[in-house]
Amino acid sequence: MRSRADAELLDASDPLAALREQFVVADPDLIYLDGNSLGRTPALVPERLATLARGEWGDRLIRSWNEGWLDLPHRVGDLIGTGLLGAAPGQVVVADSTTVNLYKLAGAALAEATRRDPARRVIVTDRGNFPTDRYVFAGLTQQLDATVRLVDSVGDVAAAVGPDTALVSLSHVDYRSGELADMAAINEAAHAAGALVLWDLSHSAGAVPVDLDGTGTDLAVGCTYKYLNGGPGAPAFLYVRGGLQASLVPPIQGWFGQRDQFAMGADYDPVPGIGRFLSGTPHIAGLVCVEEGARLIAGAGMNALRAKSVAQTELTIELADAWLAELGFRVASPREAERRGSHVALAHPDGHRISRALTELAGVIVDFRQPDVIRLGIAPAYTRFVDICDAVARLRDLVASRAHETLDLAPLPVT
Amino acid sequence: MRSRADAELLDASDPLAALREQFVVADPDLIYLDGNSLGRTPALVPERLATLARGEWGDRLIRSWNEGWLDLPHRVGDLIGTGLLGAAPGQVVVADSTTVNLYKLAGAALAEATRRDPARRVIVTDRGNFPTDRYVFAGLTQQLDATVRLVDSVGDVAAAVGPDTALVSLSHVDYRSGELADMAAINEAAHAAGALVLWDLSHSAGAVPVDLDGTGTDLAVGCTYKYLNGGPGAPAFLYVRGGLQASLVPPIQGWFGQRDQFAMGADYDPVPGIGRFLSGTPHIAGLVCVEEGARLIAGAGMNALRAKSVAQTELTIELADAWLAELGFRVASPREAERRGSHVALAHPDGHRISRALTELAGVIVDFRQPDVIRLGIAPAYTRFVDICDAVARLRDLVASRAHETLDLAPLPVT
Repeated sequence: MRSRADAELLDASDPLAALREQFVVADPDLIYLDGNSLGRTPALVPERLATLARGEWGDRLIRSWNEGWLDLPHRVGDLIGTGLLGAAPGQVVVADSTTVNLYKLAGAALAEATRRDPARRVIVTDRGNFPTDRYVFAGLTQQLDATVRLVDSVGDVAAAVGPDTALVSLSHVDYRSGELADMAAINEAAHAAGALVLWDLSHSAGAVPVDLDGTGTDLAVGCTYKYLNGGPGAPAFLYVRGGLQASLVPPIQGWFGQRDQFAMGADYDPVPGIGRFLSGTPHIAGLVCVEEGARLIAGAGMNALRAKSVAQTELTIELADAWLAELGFRVASPREAERRGSHVALAHPDGHRISRALTELAGVIVDFRQPDVIRLGIAPAYTRFVDICDAVARLRDLVASRAHETLDLAPLPVT
Repeated sequence: MRSRADAELLDASDPLAALREQFVVADPDLIYLDGNSLGRTPALVPERLATLARGEWGDRLIRSWNEGWLDLPHRVGDLIGTGLLGAAPGQVVVADSTTVNLYKLAGAALAEATRRDPARRVIVTDRGNFPTDRYVFAGLTQQLDATVRLVDSVGDVAAAVGPDTALVSLSHVDYRSGELADMAAINEAAHAAGALVLWDLSHSAGAVPVDLDGTGTDLAVGCTYKYLNGGPGAPAFLYVRGGLQASLVPPIQGWFGQRDQFAMGADYDPVPGIGRFLSGTPHIAGLVCVEEGARLIAGAGMNALRAKSVAQTELTIELADAWLAELGFRVASPREAERRGSHVALAHPDGHRISRALTELAGVIVDFRQPDVIRLGIAPAYTRFVDICDAVARLRDLVASRAHETLDLAPLPVT
């Protein structure tokens, strides 16, 4: 069994250890294992926001649109796409929220599939997919006279696609269990059935290697405020495979997708490329934060980050088995590293209360997902091996002492 | 004819003069008449962003969602609604972009109108409406088997509504001419025909008094980065009349509109109130900037701002008549103050080149709209009477000297 001294040795030999200094760490006693919900603040962000507010906005004013702002959704999109998603330039932009991007891409794909073959009116997804994904698809299919086919798990998808299927949409990493789907295999099954595929990369961008071009992915969206550290509610990204861009028309036809935008022409005439999937005016304060966060992650390199993440989730599971199993915890994430993202789910019947008590009484921030899952998020850019060791020890001591049982419950924080 | 000395006297007796100090003015020699495109930076914004980055995000991390962030779209919405739009609390939220909000509200209204009466399948708007509004309606009606009826001017709307009309949607202040529509009269005509009304307040929020509740308005959206000074691409607002909220379902069904959001239930079940029109995770950096900007404007009071704005657009027109008419300029805004918003449009055949030369050679920032309109935006919160006098004098001297004719043209800045 590994000890805290072992964890210290792992930190001492960690090639990414210095990266932690690139983030704001305001409270050195706090253990933060919730970077899968909200990533830490890049240390350059306060200065970057000050430059934006005083310089670009305050001094240059409207001129800044032509001095870099107009290009920002593309520039940050390509940074994420080429640096972390295996996407050649010109296929990723940063815009709107994950929810709105899901709506735009699923809506465009469904409309196009139905136009080409009126029999294709089904979106296949899994019952455990993230709520906003399922709600968006429910609304969209109602509007477009289509239906959602819910499968019980991602493993059932291949058997559920067929000549009626317009679109398969799944989360690459499950937000509860952390299970990592086989992107290439599902793409292949969907394509064999003539369907398009839309991946939600919210829990995988910056957390696990992604190869959108190499796996023949059609469409993807994802969040920038988790492992990309773009800040609360930062604008999301979307990917549309180059060959598909000109044939898909977003349901939200906004002026930022318009050809010769400032001619302000009478009719909607979208640009041929990825820019048509922009809608309204891009949010600049959000974009500059995403740029800082994504630059740190892309700069570290996804392979190095993944190697550390795997070592850290392995350590988490090893310690959970040794210290927590006898206290009623069960590891609810896959035990094979290649099937796991960058968080570890621990199920416990009193998980909600325990997760809150861990934060309020023991200085470890994790989060909770219904019905019984405590998530320990590993952000290899700033999580240390000793953090994991100490967090699991504090969790053990909390539950062994039954201190959590005194806690009143209140509303939960956000993913 | 009034002189610069008169303008100085007007500034000396201006009760709002001190408000200018609440904004960043980095270059005192620059005259900025483009607050109708991008408002100036509130002086408190840099500090507010630093507090967000280092404190709320950096230190409190995910806990901040329960320490104020979750409520922010509602809090800032009510600040704008009660302070500037004549809307009782609980009817305005800040979310997404103006484009996405237009899509959500027009989509919900059209679907509901058609559900109640399948014959109502027309959105009425005017040919000169802002491009993103027209493009959004074109896409939406295509998806929902409806049509757009374009009228030549806002004055033609009353005659164009009837039993086939689901929705009337107009801009309250025309982005080119600055013409102010009669909200109460148009609402009455639309309601008499059984249609709902959706106003785009992008060029009126913070610029002219608005009384959404008093005029019986159904729906409204608007921009926060113009007269509300929320920063480039800041999240927009939307208004849904209280009595309508429970019957309209937004087409984008996002998890932030879900009842008991963190139960993450199987089916979409929106909250009964305005919150259902949120979609994805709110953009916090944008919201705090909007709060600072809107607080300054609401604090000054819309009546005082309007009185100054009218005096300043009157002065602009008076000087244009005196100094610019003979140089080929024509006042393209209404001459009656009660029919005018807070910018003055000057048409000139070489307007594009002149507007650029004014910025690049004469230190006056205005903007240009096709085909021939130079817009002089009056933001009474920080525009001085001498700014107007000096700007019109520089415009006169520029064109009289023909200095603008040497300028090569390049892409235009953004509204």
